[in-house]
Order: sequence, then C-alpha cells, then structure tokens
Amino acid sequence: MNTESTHNARAGVREVCERARVARGWLATSTSQKRNDILAAVARGLIDRTEEILIENGKDCQAGREAGMAEGLLDRLALSPKRVEDLAQSVIDLISLPDPVGEIVSGSTMPTGLRVRRVRVPLGVVGMIYEARPNVTVDAACLCIKSGNAAIVRGGSAALNSNRILVDIIRDAIASEGGSADLVASVDQWGREGATELMRARGLIDALVPRGGAGLIRSVVDNSIVPVIETGVGNCHIYVDASADLEQATPIVMNAKTQRVGVCNAVETLLIDYTIADTFLPVVAKQLIEAGVTLHADETARQILEGFEQVVEATESDWETEYLSYDLAVRIVSGVDEAVEHIRTYSSGHTEAVLANDTRIVNTFVAGVDSAAVAINASTRFTDGGQLGLGAELGISTQKLHARGPMGLTELTTWTWIIEGDGHIRA
Amino acid sequence: MNTESTHNARAGVREVCERARVARGWLATSTSQKRNDILAAVARGLIDRTEEILIENGKDCQAGREAGMAEGLLDRLALSPKRVEDLAQSVIDLISLPDPVGEIVSGSTMPTGLRVRRVRVPLGVVGMIYEARPNVTVDAACLCIKSGNAAIVRGGSAALNSNRILVDIIRDAIASEGGSADLVASVDQWGREGATELMRARGLIDALVPRGGAGLIRSVVDNSIVPVIETGVGNCHIYVDASADLEQATPIVMNAKTQRVGVCNAVETLLIDYTIADTFLPVVAKQLIEAGVTLHADETARQILEGFEQVVEATESDWETEYLSYDLAVRIVSGVDEAVEHIRTYSSGHTEAVLANDTRIVNTFVAGVDSAAVAINASTRFTDGGQLGLGAELGISTQKLHARGPMGLTELTTWTWIIEGDGHIRA
Repeated sequence: MNTESTHNARAGVREVCERARVARGWLATSTSQKRNDILAAVARGLIDRTEEILIENGKDCQAGREAGMAEGLLDRLALSPKRVEDLAQSVIDLISLPDPVGEIVSGSTMPTGLRVRRVRVPLGVVGMIYEARPNVTVDAACLCIKSGNAAIVRGGSAALNSNRILVDIIRDAIASEGGSADLVASVDQWGREGATELMRARGLIDALVPRGGAGLIRSVVDNSIVPVIETGVGNCHIYVDASADLEQATPIVMNAKTQRVGVCNAVETLLIDYTIADTFLPVVAKQLIEAGVTLHADETARQILEGFEQVVEATESDWETEYLSYDLAVRIVSGVDEAVEHIRTYSSGHTEAVLANDTRIVNTFVAGVDSAAVAINASTRFTDGGQLGLGAELGISTQKLHARGPMGLTELTTWTWIIEGDGHIRA
Repeated sequence: MNTESTHNARAGVREVCERARVARGWLATSTSQKRNDILAAVARGLIDRTEEILIENGKDCQAGREAGMAEGLLDRLALSPKRVEDLAQSVIDLISLPDPVGEIVSGSTMPTGLRVRRVRVPLGVVGMIYEARPNVTVDAACLCIKSGNAAIVRGGSAALNSNRILVDIIRDAIASEGGSADLVASVDQWGREGATELMRARGLIDALVPRGGAGLIRSVVDNSIVPVIETGVGNCHIYVDASADLEQATPIVMNAKTQRVGVCNAVETLLIDYTIADTFLPVVAKQLIEAGVTLHADETARQILEGFEQVVEATESDWETEYLSYDLAVRIVSGVDEAVEHIRTYSSGHTEAVLANDTRIVNTFVAGVDSAAVAINASTRFTDGGQLGLGAELGISTQKLHARGPMGLTELTTWTWIIEGDGHIRA
C-alpha cells in the first residue's frame, strides 16, 4: 500500500461519507411514503435493467471462474433473470413493513411536569463490508433507505462490476424520486484501502456491519475505531437428549444440515446423549451420508458407526469449525450438562438447538447456553429475520450489544430522548 | 512496558475474566430476590466498614494532594462519612427497581405454530474503565449485580486504595449471601497494562464501558477489540431563540452552567439568536459573571458585552471544548438553522437544549440536531438516569448503538431468541 493511494482512499472515502451525511438531512425529514416510493423505483430499476445487470455480473462470474473461484462462492456471486426478479420482489416486500422511525419507545410525565419520551430515529450512516454477494448490496441499501439511514457499501472485489451497476440503479431510483443519490454509495473503487478507511471514519460512520466469514469479521473488529456490529459466524449445535422424540429428531438434523449448507444457521456439530446413541446415531448417520455429508466423529461415535463410509476422525479443530459445507461434527455426550459445556466452549453464539421432551432438560439447556437464539424441538434454520417475523434482515448479530440475532428494520434505529418542559430547571 | 509484566498482566486479567464467567453461571440461575439480598449486604458492609473506607481513601487523597492533583479531581476522589452513607443509600435504592432480566421483549406464534419469544438476559461480563472516582466502583458493580452481570472494574490509579477496600466489601457481601465473590473483581493491580488487557479480552468481556474524559474514551475506542459503549463526553449546547420566554431562559442557562460545572450534562456553549442578543445577552451575562463564569465570546457578543469583565475572545477550540469548569462559550447566530449547523459541527452528541415557543423552531431544532437528548424549554441537566425515570445509571451513552443517553438496568441486558416448535423444520 503506497502512501499516495492511502491518501486518495482516505480523502475519497471521507468525501463519500460526508456527502452521505448531508444527503441524510433530506432523508431525515422525508416521509415514510417517500421512502417507499424510492423502494418501488429501485424495484422497477432492477427489472428494467436486468440485461445490464446480467452483463456486468457475467464479467464478474467469468473472472471468478478464470481465477478458480470455488463453486459455492461462484453460486453466491451469480445472478440470473429469476434471481434479479427475486431481488426486486424482496425490495417490494420491504414496502409493506411498518416504518420503525418515529415510534415512541417509552414516555412519561415526571412528577415535576417534565414530559419525557424516547423516539426512534435512524442510526445515521451505516457502513456494510461484505463478500462477493451482489444481493447483499441491494438488501443492505434498501433496508437502510426504508429505515431512514444512508448506506455506504463495500462489497467483495470479485463482485465489482455487479455492485457498480446495482449501486447505480439504486442511486438513479433515489434521484428519480427527488432524493439525493449520495444516500447510497460504494467505496469499492478504493479496494481494500477503501474498506480500511471505512473502519477509520470515526464521526462519519455511525455503525459498521461486517457480514461474511470469520476472517472478514475478525479483521473488521480488530481494525475498526467506529462502532461495529458483528454478524454471522454460525458454529451452530444440535443436542439430541434421551428424552427427545427421535421421529422428529432425524428430519430436524437433516433440515438443519442439508437444506442449505452455506448459511450461518446450518448446524455444524451434532451432540447426542450416550443413552440413545446406539439407536439414534446409525439412523441419522445413514440419511446424512446418503445426502453426501461427511461425519467428523469422536471415538465413541466412530465405534457405533463402524463400517459406515464418510466417517472420519474428529479433532479439536472440528469442534471449532463453521464448515459451511457437507460436513458435520458428531460427539457423544454424557447428558445435557456436557452438551452445554461443549457449546459454551466452542460455539460462536449464533443458534443452538435442544431436542428433548423433558422440561428440566430444556430449561437447563436454555439457561446454560449463551447464544443469540435457542431452538427447542425445531431446526436451527429458523434464525432468520423472515422466519422470526421481522420481515427482512441485514444480518444475524452474534454479539450482545444493540441487536442480538436477526437485525431487522428496528435494529437499524436508535432513539433520541426528548425532554420537554416549561422552563424546568434541575433542583 | 516490559514483556514480562505484559505477560503477567495478560495472564492475570484473563484469569480474573474467566473466574467472572464461571461465577456468572451462579448468577444466571439466581433469583431476583437473591441479587437484592446481595445489594442489601453491600449497603450494610459500606456502613459497617466506613472507618476502613475513610482510612484507605485518606491515603489516596493525601497522595493526590502531594502530587498536586487539581481541586475538582480531589473533590471527586474524596469520601466522607456522609458520602459513604449516600453511596450505601444509592445501593439500597437499587433494590426496589424492577429486575429487567426475564422480561419478554416480544413474542408471537408464527403461522406454522412455531412459538417465538425474545427474552431479556444479562450481557454477561461487563468491563468498566474509569477515572479516580470511588463511587463509580460501587455504582457500576451494584448495577451489574442487580442486572445479573459480572463486573470487572479498572479505576484510576489515584483511587487505588479506595477501590481496593470497596471491591473487598462488595466481594465479601456476595460471599456472605452464598454467591461467588469472583462476580466482581478489579484489575487495578496491573495498572495501565491491566486496562489494555481488558480492551483485548475478546470472548471474555461482553461489553466494555469507558467513563471519563475525552482522552480516556478515545484511548479505549482506539485500542479495544471487545465491544465498547462510549459514554459521557458532553459538549452540550443551549440555543435561545427569538421566540423564547426570556424570563425562563436565564434560570435555565444558570442551572445548566452553574449547578454543577464538572458534569457531562452541564452546558458548554450558549447560542443566541441575533434579534434578541442585545436585550438577553447582557442580562444573562451579568448573572453568569457574578457566579464566577468566564465567557468565551464571539465578536458580536463581545461588542454587546463591551465593558463587562470576564469576557474573553472565543477561538475555534472553544467551540470544541467540554470545559467542565466555570467557562462558557457564547456565539450569536442568525437563527435556528445556524444554531443547528453549529451543533452538528461541534457537538459530542450528548444533550442540546432549545428555548423557544415557536413550534416550527422547536421541530426544526429537534429534527436537525443528532444527539442523545434534546431538551425543549428545560435545562440540559435533566439527562440523567434518575431524572428521566430509569432509577439509576451506569453512564450516559453518546454513541448510537445499543443504548443512547442514560444507561439504566435495561441497557445492561441483551436478549435471547427462544424458538419453540414441535419438530418444526424449515420449508
């Protein structure tokens, strides 16, 4: 990184942020109706310019293939007419969600007659740093617009062309509704330095949301001096207790592991009570293996699964790994306490499931794990803004400050205390 | 800083944090009643051991005086029998506040029959880094105990002896109620390195709250890789509009500036509409000057105040400064828009007051400033947990994530999503 380019990136990113702050002044006084009109214009723009989008996305995909990009990543990068249509539909779906801005969170009249209320307001300027997934560009920008925020995006460099056209379409839509296009901007042109400067833009960025793999998130946390909301790393567990309904357990494990393997709410480690391991494990293992899953099993589990293919030895690193692939770690435990202990040691704090019909077991599990979501007799896959009734989400927060779990529109706001008196002074 | 001492500090701080995490397991399953019993024991301990506290505090105060500590800081450091009694009373006051833990924040049954609820849980292990104010040690530890959190405190080195005895008393109280004393611990013994290691204790500290001057907070924000809630820097403004009730305006300005000058919600800059400056400024200036305040005035204000003593020229740095002293910056503005512009440029985002009876002016001001609290026809001094009905507070957050404004018990919690099904899998 040479000094001149750093200087350019700094000046460039700061200018983009300053422009966003100014543009937000317009958004702050805009009506909910106007923000919905912008979203409708974005959706129209995506449909009308599908061909352009596919051409630009095609360049990225070709470059990705030539560079030997993994199949899973290429799949996340690639757009199709259907995917663009889905993207436009997700923007339209946002329109009908309630506007969190202006909600009175709490309010009261104090004994002295002072009227106090806490009113929801947008965070301000939200930064997003993510990987080569063009749909995140649209999702993040539109969630921000809906909730009255400006969005500064920095997508993975492998999606440079796709993101450029998508940001253009969004900016055009804002301008077509009389807004300032600077509300949504990209810092992709400054590459990695752009991302670094976003992390240093103290006073200009109100919240920075990294979304992606563990490495990306760690790098943002380590280097940021602006407030960060960590999202997404999901080393999720399912514990199958002796009291579980085993008829339900197999479909839940299959759903959690194989419905989509590349997502953060997929299960990565299966913990089974030793008293049911002999009966349950061979059944679930057979189905998992048929679906193409490799089991990384501890010694006890390997003994039970002797003769099964696709069963390998689990090492310490298996307990720590978010595979995001057709792999599952398996460990036999001595009961709920050992399961909780394992989860507290290795979990990333995303989602843990307990399958049990004994309420004492369920309560011990819920009280013991320390994660954003706990599923009881349900799949880990439910930790998702849409599934939990938030309508849409920016990501899944795995930290405890501000928002925990899915971040919907409300989680993109803060509040202002309005203190109204008639000449009140403090006694 | 030599390598060995860094190593010792790291190992020591990590051990303290690990012990707190283990101890929190006990707290997580404790009842609200038990936590209140601990608080009662803390209050008794403070009263019973007042003499010990005063001896230890006396050592700190003497060392402070010998080192030439400023009078204001010495006043914050010093305890007296009355102050210890007040401290014990503030702990007792906490007992009657509602327990936020376990509150169901929201909940619903999804169309598929899945039951979803968001339940308040403690943050976990809260770190506090603050200056030489022994009362913060007690306040922070007791707010954390009440809300089910462990507290790791690092106070200013000038209060070393005071904090040691106070932490001892709190730990003894926890143990006397059958709890683990490790719930509350200090890392003061490792000095600055202890503070640094607290900022690096990723995975061990759930939230770190710096409380103190701008330099302290900046240092924590720059060096932390654990989530931080910034508190306290209060460069607060009052704007007096032409439509203001000037009879109310003078007492409000006097209250905001002179009731207590060393606090974060004191006013630091007075902005006055030019149309009323000739009449209002001399009146308020006379009272301020009589109270010992020095006015740092812009050119227009200096012309109006010609012949007044204690009026000096304001420079750019005056607009940026949180004086925390008998000083006030004064600027004449061309109306609400220029006032808002000034505030957006220089404010630390704490509290701004507008004194006006024209609702359009009030609305423009409220929509335009971007601070944690806005006072309308009231003193800035009301931004305080007690004054706003929260009962007690850990500090005033000036950032937008998690909590904004006073941080009460609820702001020391997060939530867990509980997702309960009957074998539900995701379609």
